[in-house]
Amino acid sequence: MPPQRALGVAVVGTGKMGADHVRRLHDVISGAQVTAVVDIEAERAKTLADAIDGCTAYTDAAAAMAAHDVDAVLIASPGPAHEAALREALGRDLPVLCEKPLTPDSASALRVLEAEQRLGHRRIQVGFMRRYDPEYMKLKRLLDGGELGRALMVHHRHRNLAMPPWFTEEMLISDSVAHEVDATRWLLDQEITAVTVHKPAPSSYAPAGMRDPQFVLFETRSGALVDVEIFGHCGYGYQVHAEAVCERGTVRIGDEHGPRLSADGRWGGRITPDYVERFEDAYDREIQSWVDATRRGGTTGPSTWDGYAAAAVCEAGVLSQREGRRVEIDLIDRPSLYG
Amino acid sequence: MPPQRALGVAVVGTGKMGADHVRRLHDVISGAQVTAVVDIEAERAKTLADAIDGCTAYTDAAAAMAAHDVDAVLIASPGPAHEAALREALGRDLPVLCEKPLTPDSASALRVLEAEQRLGHRRIQVGFMRRYDPEYMKLKRLLDGGELGRALMVHHRHRNLAMPPWFTEEMLISDSVAHEVDATRWLLDQEITAVTVHKPAPSSYAPAGMRDPQFVLFETRSGALVDVEIFGHCGYGYQVHAEAVCERGTVRIGDEHGPRLSADGRWGGRITPDYVERFEDAYDREIQSWVDATRRGGTTGPSTWDGYAAAAVCEAGVLSQREGRRVEIDLIDRPSLYG
Amino acid sequence: MPPQRALGVAVVGTGKMGADHVRRLHDVISGAQVTAVVDIEAERAKTLADAIDGCTAYTDAAAAMAAHDVDAVLIASPGPAHEAALREALGRDLPVLCEKPLTPDSASALRVLEAEQRLGHRRIQVGFMRRYDPEYMKLKRLLDGGELGRALMVHHRHRNLAMPPWFTEEMLISDSVAHEVDATRWLLDQEITAVTVHKPAPSSYAPAGMRDPQFVLFETRSGALVDVEIFGHCGYGYQVHAEAVCERGTVRIGDEHGPRLSADGRWGGRITPDYVERFEDAYDREIQSWVDATRRGGTTGPSTWDGYAAAAVCEAGVLSQREGRRVEIDLIDRPSLYG
Amino acid sequence: MPPQRALGVAVVGTGKMGADHVRRLHDVISGAQVTAVVDIEAERAKTLADAIDGCTAYTDAAAAMAAHDVDAVLIASPGPAHEAALREALGRDLPVLCEKPLTPDSASALRVLEAEQRLGHRRIQVGFMRRYDPEYMKLKRLLDGGELGRALMVHHRHRNLAMPPWFTEEMLISDSVAHEVDATRWLLDQEITAVTVHKPAPSSYAPAGMRDPQFVLFETRSGALVDVEIFGHCGYGYQVHAEAVCERGTVRIGDEHGPRLSADGRWGGRITPDYVERFEDAYDREIQSWVDATRRGGTTGPSTWDGYAAAAVCEAGVLSQREGRRVEIDLIDRPSLYG
Repeated sequence: MPPQRALGVAVVGTGKMGADHVRRLHDVISGAQVTAVVDIEAERAKTLADAIDGCTAYTDAAAAMAAHDVDAVLIASPGPAHEAALREALGRDLPVLCEKPLTPDSASALRVLEAEQRLGHRRIQVGFMRRYDPEYMKLKRLLDGGELGRALMVHHRHRNLAMPPWFTEEMLISDSVAHEVDATRWLLDQEITAVTVHKPAPSSYAPAGMRDPQFVLFETRSGALVDVEIFGHCGYGYQVHAEAVCERGTVRIGDEHGPRLSADGRWGGRITPDYVERFEDAYDREIQSWVDATRRGGTTGPSTWDGYAAAAVCEAGVLSQREGRRVEIDLIDRPSLYG
Repeated sequence: MPPQRALGVAVVGTGKMGADHVRRLHDVISGAQVTAVVDIEAERAKTLADAIDGCTAYTDAAAAMAAHDVDAVLIASPGPAHEAALREALGRDLPVLCEKPLTPDSASALRVLEAEQRLGHRRIQVGFMRRYDPEYMKLKRLLDGGELGRALMVHHRHRNLAMPPWFTEEMLISDSVAHEVDATRWLLDQEITAVTVHKPAPSSYAPAGMRDPQFVLFETRSGALVDVEIFGHCGYGYQVHAEAVCERGTVRIGDEHGPRLSADGRWGGRITPDYVERFEDAYDREIQSWVDATRRGGTTGPSTWDGYAAAAVCEAGVLSQREGRRVEIDLIDRPSLYG
Repeated sequence: MPPQRALGVAVVGTGKMGADHVRRLHDVISGAQVTAVVDIEAERAKTLADAIDGCTAYTDAAAAMAAHDVDAVLIASPGPAHEAALREALGRDLPVLCEKPLTPDSASALRVLEAEQRLGHRRIQVGFMRRYDPEYMKLKRLLDGGELGRALMVHHRHRNLAMPPWFTEEMLISDSVAHEVDATRWLLDQEITAVTVHKPAPSSYAPAGMRDPQFVLFETRSGALVDVEIFGHCGYGYQVHAEAVCERGTVRIGDEHGPRLSADGRWGGRITPDYVERFEDAYDREIQSWVDATRRGGTTGPSTWDGYAAAAVCEAGVLSQREGRRVEIDLIDRPSLYG
Repeated sequence: MPPQRALGVAVVGTGKMGADHVRRLHDVISGAQVTAVVDIEAERAKTLADAIDGCTAYTDAAAAMAAHDVDAVLIASPGPAHEAALREALGRDLPVLCEKPLTPDSASALRVLEAEQRLGHRRIQVGFMRRYDPEYMKLKRLLDGGELGRALMVHHRHRNLAMPPWFTEEMLISDSVAHEVDATRWLLDQEITAVTVHKPAPSSYAPAGMRDPQFVLFETRSGALVDVEIFGHCGYGYQVHAEAVCERGTVRIGDEHGPRLSADGRWGGRITPDYVERFEDAYDREIQSWVDATRRGGTTGPSTWDGYAAAAVCEAGVLSQREGRRVEIDLIDRPSLYG
């Protein structure tokens, strides 16, 4: 078992996800304590820090990482701020859990990849939390078990009640479908080689000018075909389904369950309104898993390579979305560090 | 295959069920035609008859049965009128499908049973239509198949949106639970030997003075224990479930299915409002099965014995309901005709 | 109500489907009788006819249609034989139910369409039986009701246990996806304007040289996007799902239900092995609906136009399948007869 | 937020549950550390303690409770050892989480209750973990919300794959149904006033001489009727269902979900083999909730009163089981401490 001392974690970024991770590390996670919170808004950081014994507020990520009681870093700041924070952490050889996206584009992701390679060992885990969802984990285990044969197709459904006002059409790919990019690569254990984005006639509830929903096709190295329905404004709740079509069977995950109510002439139940509630368990497991691995001196979960590959696919997806054509993805050779 | 001529059916009683059976025989059933409708309300019978070529209206069941174009009788009049009609039909050796109950009590049922025995062959089928419901049929097949071992318990749920104003507390047993009495005897292929009726504190939506819902326990000859929740005014729809607990597995039927809608923050679907819609297929199959057997000169389905046994159990149930104690059921020996 | 005399039906073609329709018309359907069966194999026709009172065997469809006791024609012969039989029936102004496909290609379908137009009234119903499946009917009603807004996408799954040895890759489109072509046009009430067929790496259980499964995209006039997974050799059963994605909700049909068994460490139930069992009810309703409409002197169900449009989409689909590109569909203007 | 120092917990009893709680406190729970493990088998305690930094092994519970680094006690020893350990903890005013049963009978439970009353404040939480199961919590919230009206009946199903060899028929009530006793009292927020145990003919897979399954009826103060199917050797997995029947709706929990697999002619999924896997989340939440409340200086969850009431109902249940009759339950007046 690991040494008793708790892992001192600096949380960088205290928006919705960052603040939730502070709460999670403090109340839910075993073996960690939040020793630093960082936000460019000083007041915000201070309020969070004051509520926790032994936690200091910072406005500068580098300063926090330099503190003696910071053993590891959880980055939950906006994507454009990730590269600098990641390079700072790598420079100090600190373990990092970085919320997705690793960085906003493949070029910057590549720079982080190269920095980690220069360091010579893995330090970064990327926050693709679906890998920690109990149903996804069971699906992965079924696919890996091999009793159903190879996976030939995967159908993904990804629906949101509504998106915030600043959400752009590009973000349907780069922010939302990004999850299916990683889920696909992880479930099938291979790279995506081409992407095509289709745009049906939009919902009249989509924001003016946004084509929503969209339908994305991935082709993988082995020739599997994967489709993703992404719907930003479905109007009824948050819903994530996946169905793997294998040679000898199919598996579907994500159906709502919970209490089955019969009342008012209807049977059924409630749909979760957002990803925070839907994937609450997954977030808990992800962070606990990162803390546990880090305390053991190891790494786990999605790597910098996964973050880079996801960035490259999303970039191609946005291009396909813009130009209405199939776009191939050209990854660098996979470095041996990520073998 | 049977001879081509359609079976001429006299429908006795043209209330809700009777009129529905006329429609069914005319529009849905193959190989039958309605040649007579009987109702003490002459106008009502005439209206129905006029809409069908070759169909005559009667106010007297005996007169209809005497008609040359009547080959068989479907009795859908109120229970108290059944005995006379059944004896008339037996006197003429006419095949009968008699809506449940066979007769209102076990003494009169016994008289019908004796009359049929004197005739020397089976002519009567009793309208326990659940035996023709596709899910009940599959459950029966599973239990008979034996792969799950013996059935040790059965849990029945029987819920109605609401009951008509003339519905009495006794009818919760004699009219509603009557279905579970037959289903139990049929599924387990044995007699019920004792019955106990429990009355929880009533729903505030039950009619004044009626204890609704109630909970009924059956004991069977082999020692199986069967419970029935009967709820006359559940307020949300018509729901019939059954769960068999066997030595090596359990089976549940009756869950609502059909389109699974996701909207307004909820998943699920619609519950049928009444037994007519819920068991529409079962009624169709029951009548078709009766017509087919009759045209072949045979009999099928629940017999007079089943009608008598059900009457005896319901009688004991009403006694238990009234006196708050377990009541044993004493059937006559099963005549060889019903072996 | 219709006149009492049963509709005399000639069944042309007595293969698997034809023989099943003879049985259905005889045993299940109300108001019809099989007065003629036609097959080029005389012995086969005779065996079927001999079992039915008043039924005559023919080897020539035209001779059967000329018989005085034939009021209507059910065509279940192989597709290439349809055109001649249809034109013969139209020439005699006989009502026809023609199993899908109407004819094997759009050019011949167009000739039939023109013949019916010359006749001046509709006589032909095409056998797209999914329109009569209870769940499809409920889905259609939901979409038409409008409470969910417009349908933006539909996801179809169409899986077969295995295909017969003579089944070709083209038939995945022209024979199997043909059902989704009609279902899509009917559900969305609009034409399909383009089709693209994708071929993932094939299952190792597919016949040598056949790319199975395939994934088909339809675009419709209003811009809806529809995808079809067609899998000829899924190895576990027959499964047909559809999910409509609307502006304010989604609806899914086709999930297996029936008894829910718990045994051997697993919960769940049985999957039907083939379309005959899965769509048994739909076939019954389709034929009954045709008989009823015909006896009333009217028509119902999918028209010659639907048969022509399906042929045109399938033709484009096979071209897309062959050439690996998106193919647009160019229909003639819809004649007023089919308005 | 609570002070940063972790809660030092002594775990008394290191059998299956005790060892699992040590693991849970160490790996999963936030804010606690195992500082002592106690077992009369010294070697067993030592092995567990050695794997954890700062954890000491004891053979005597009192000695462990006297240690300076023990802030709270988790009792997971066999039931007969509970009373002494509980009184020792109360004597030291230490917070306790005591695995069910509180004590083996109502007389000893009453002595503990009196001791806690003398102490003057609550210190004991009883380990009825179903109150922490997400579905039970949602059911409780629905019932408390009141939109379905009062609960009139509850149907419980409680099935086990098989029981260990030392499991007696009495334990079907005192050990297994004990969970439904607490669940019923908690869900309905009222006491159970009478219990009747029915014994159907046993499964041929039950141990010689054991009547298994059994069927238990509870009556509650307000007149609700609650039934429990308890099946110790169902042979297929661990299954816990509950269905509440309310005045305006019914709610069912416990249906298996997770990946829905279609393969080999069947749809469905896996059933958990035992309570450890089925209620893993509930155990985690229960312990975390206890640690959190304790660190805040408060109490939560089922109280000593709940433990006493459960013991009294189980005692009556065993009597009913033995004598085959309805047995009323006579509780002392509820002390104000547990108001």
